[in-house]
Amino acid sequence: MSPLKIAIAGLGVVGGEVARQLMHRQEQLALASGRALQLVAVSARSASADRGFSMDQIDWHDNAIDLAGRDDVDVIIEMIGGSEGVAVELTRTALKNGKHVITANKAMIAHHGAELASLAEDHNCYLLFESAVAGGIPAVKTLREGLAGNDMSRIAGILNGTCNYILTTMEQTGEDFADVLADAQRLGYAEAEPSFDVDGIDAAHKLTILAAIAFGQKPDFAAASIQGIRDVSAVDFAFANQLGFRIKLVGVAAPGQVPRMQTCLLPLSSQLAKVNGVLNAVEFYGEPIGSVIAIGPGAGGGATSSAVLSDIIDIAHDRGGMPFGRPVAQLVDSADQVGAAPADMPFYVRLMVVDEPGVLASVTGILQRHEISVESLIQQGRAPGDVVALVMTTHETAESTLTEALDEMASLPSVKAKPVAMPIFSAEQE
Amino acid sequence: MSPLKIAIAGLGVVGGEVARQLMHRQEQLALASGRALQLVAVSARSASADRGFSMDQIDWHDNAIDLAGRDDVDVIIEMIGGSEGVAVELTRTALKNGKHVITANKAMIAHHGAELASLAEDHNCYLLFESAVAGGIPAVKTLREGLAGNDMSRIAGILNGTCNYILTTMEQTGEDFADVLADAQRLGYAEAEPSFDVDGIDAAHKLTILAAIAFGQKPDFAAASIQGIRDVSAVDFAFANQLGFRIKLVGVAAPGQVPRMQTCLLPLSSQLAKVNGVLNAVEFYGEPIGSVIAIGPGAGGGATSSAVLSDIIDIAHDRGGMPFGRPVAQLVDSADQVGAAPADMPFYVRLMVVDEPGVLASVTGILQRHEISVESLIQQGRAPGDVVALVMTTHETAESTLTEALDEMASLPSVKAKPVAMPIFSAEQE
Repeated sequence: MSPLKIAIAGLGVVGGEVARQLMHRQEQLALASGRALQLVAVSARSASADRGFSMDQIDWHDNAIDLAGRDDVDVIIEMIGGSEGVAVELTRTALKNGKHVITANKAMIAHHGAELASLAEDHNCYLLFESAVAGGIPAVKTLREGLAGNDMSRIAGILNGTCNYILTTMEQTGEDFADVLADAQRLGYAEAEPSFDVDGIDAAHKLTILAAIAFGQKPDFAAASIQGIRDVSAVDFAFANQLGFRIKLVGVAAPGQVPRMQTCLLPLSSQLAKVNGVLNAVEFYGEPIGSVIAIGPGAGGGATSSAVLSDIIDIAHDRGGMPFGRPVAQLVDSADQVGAAPADMPFYVRLMVVDEPGVLASVTGILQRHEISVESLIQQGRAPGDVVALVMTTHETAESTLTEALDEMASLPSVKAKPVAMPIFSAEQE
Repeated sequence: MSPLKIAIAGLGVVGGEVARQLMHRQEQLALASGRALQLVAVSARSASADRGFSMDQIDWHDNAIDLAGRDDVDVIIEMIGGSEGVAVELTRTALKNGKHVITANKAMIAHHGAELASLAEDHNCYLLFESAVAGGIPAVKTLREGLAGNDMSRIAGILNGTCNYILTTMEQTGEDFADVLADAQRLGYAEAEPSFDVDGIDAAHKLTILAAIAFGQKPDFAAASIQGIRDVSAVDFAFANQLGFRIKLVGVAAPGQVPRMQTCLLPLSSQLAKVNGVLNAVEFYGEPIGSVIAIGPGAGGGATSSAVLSDIIDIAHDRGGMPFGRPVAQLVDSADQVGAAPADMPFYVRLMVVDEPGVLASVTGILQRHEISVESLIQQGRAPGDVVALVMTTHETAESTLTEALDEMASLPSVKAKPVAMPIFSAEQE
């Protein structure tokens, strides 16, 4: 069989590692692919950088778009990134020219996935993005093929290693967000401009993609509810632990509900709660499977290039499938599914109150009027006249109801800071 | 596209659930498959049993082999089981007749996988067995496709839910193996004849299959080293815990080494150590991925039928691939890879010794003569003249060296029972 001819646009951490793998492991990858894989052209910022492989047999292009115009290229690997701009233009042009596209660009797929999948269909090409979600974990393949026979009811994931590292470190050291972030930046676990990570945007891109595949809907990033980790206080980790929970940034998607990226409390005994540091994890719930969780490295050149290589091998075997597991015409608009209020959930609530007679009665009175029942309550120490923490967990309640109650509490003279509330994620909830 | 026509041989827990899914979820499964799935014929022990779906449109065969002779059948789902007999005859006949075969029969694939894969190749058929390994976890697909671009260096798995349930319960209750097994049998977690499970045979079938795919070798059950859990004593759990470990039955395979199914000690912080109860888990190590672990239900009708449905959908999309990820002619004989002594490992050792002067000197003297160095040591209580436990962990040593040392210790007059030794599994070892 003729070699599969590959071009790579972008030779950063991942693109460079993919190129090195292709150049240094030709025999093994040809065996896995059933044919030779040949890197014929690349484009990147600097032609002169030493990237650890020989450019002798590889053509260089200053303009990445030119890769899509080469007659001898079968597959374009888009490693430029960004939800708009060159990456999108290259992908569109490549698909229109009948070339398969592999991309790690979660922003592009979350924003333009349906349009690009249509282009791929129209031009009989594969559009693959295993590397866009959860790095080395084969989450896309697991969902789209491995669990294809299931009626999926929920996806829950730890989808950003930077956030998980920061939260794990805050819990272990008791340090505040800002200090841990600064350390993470020094260690290279967080970007100098960290907002894509710590504001939950990167993770929400991935959740949007997983939800689209799981529930047969067009990826719709705008529909997601996104919260990051900037507001998490060190003090909450200890209270959560005392109550049997751990705080994580978790993405949750279910049919007919807004995909949510949120800090929440996970039971310490749950598999997700045990995923610490820079690891990612995706838990898949459905019938008849029940649930399966996959845990692995969510970033880095090695892990992510493994996902790219898997996509290349699928194309070599002509088994790339449909980007979202079904024809685009059969994907529903997420707007048709979304709009329902989120399911009732139990919540963790922390108030900072002046330790004086009557506070507890005022707070519990508000909860009672809103028909929110308390599961457990921790009153921190005794310090008459000082500000202390009052921590509660509630039974299942509507988020809107809780918000109303918290607003009332915030206006009590004894309540000295904005109340903190986080949902409690139950492995049983569906 | 024409419907994919399916016959099922064996309507037990899994086969029956597959049939119900096919009958009750036709629309959703057709969407996932890109074509209708039609159950046209079945064979089982009793034609009269009510299995929760209508037999009106389904032909019954008393003899399963007859399913392979039907012109209208595209796929045979073999759910009879057994490494020899009807299951193997049916599979051979079906493949020779050009029919795809899906099987949950781990014994058959572990014993006859290479021969059957050759038949599938010769007759241009798919032979798929996702359901044979780790139930609902898509372990075969993950290894064969999701991680296909990796140079795999190790597979480690908890591959038998019955054993894991028994070990978890022994640790939690402090009860002995026999008592916990009896309870598990009453609860339906263990068979009346438990030896396939508790002697490690079922798990070794699965490990044999995973090793074949991971390292490109012919499945060779006879080559595996297999130890079960009958000899684990309740007392070892507490010592292991005190040392920071948990006892699990773990299957480990690496290139050029005998696949081993063994009770071993896992660091409490490792992902595998956190997999409790009836769950299964498979951890995949390779380059460039690093490692990924998948955890899920290893048995049961629901979980296992999910794997069968995934195989059906792959066949419907004509993407079933090669049984072991490469042509049979390119699979090496495991005998070519095996034969090397297992890598040096650290060990846990427990001796029951009379608490009298000189014992420790005798034991450590033997270790010193064999150049085995001690990492940590626990001497249980003080009970002069009584028998007490002497627990050690060693640094890495050859298993054969340790065995010689233990034989010498066993002959000491102060050593009152056969020494217990288990390897310590390090996530770092390669």
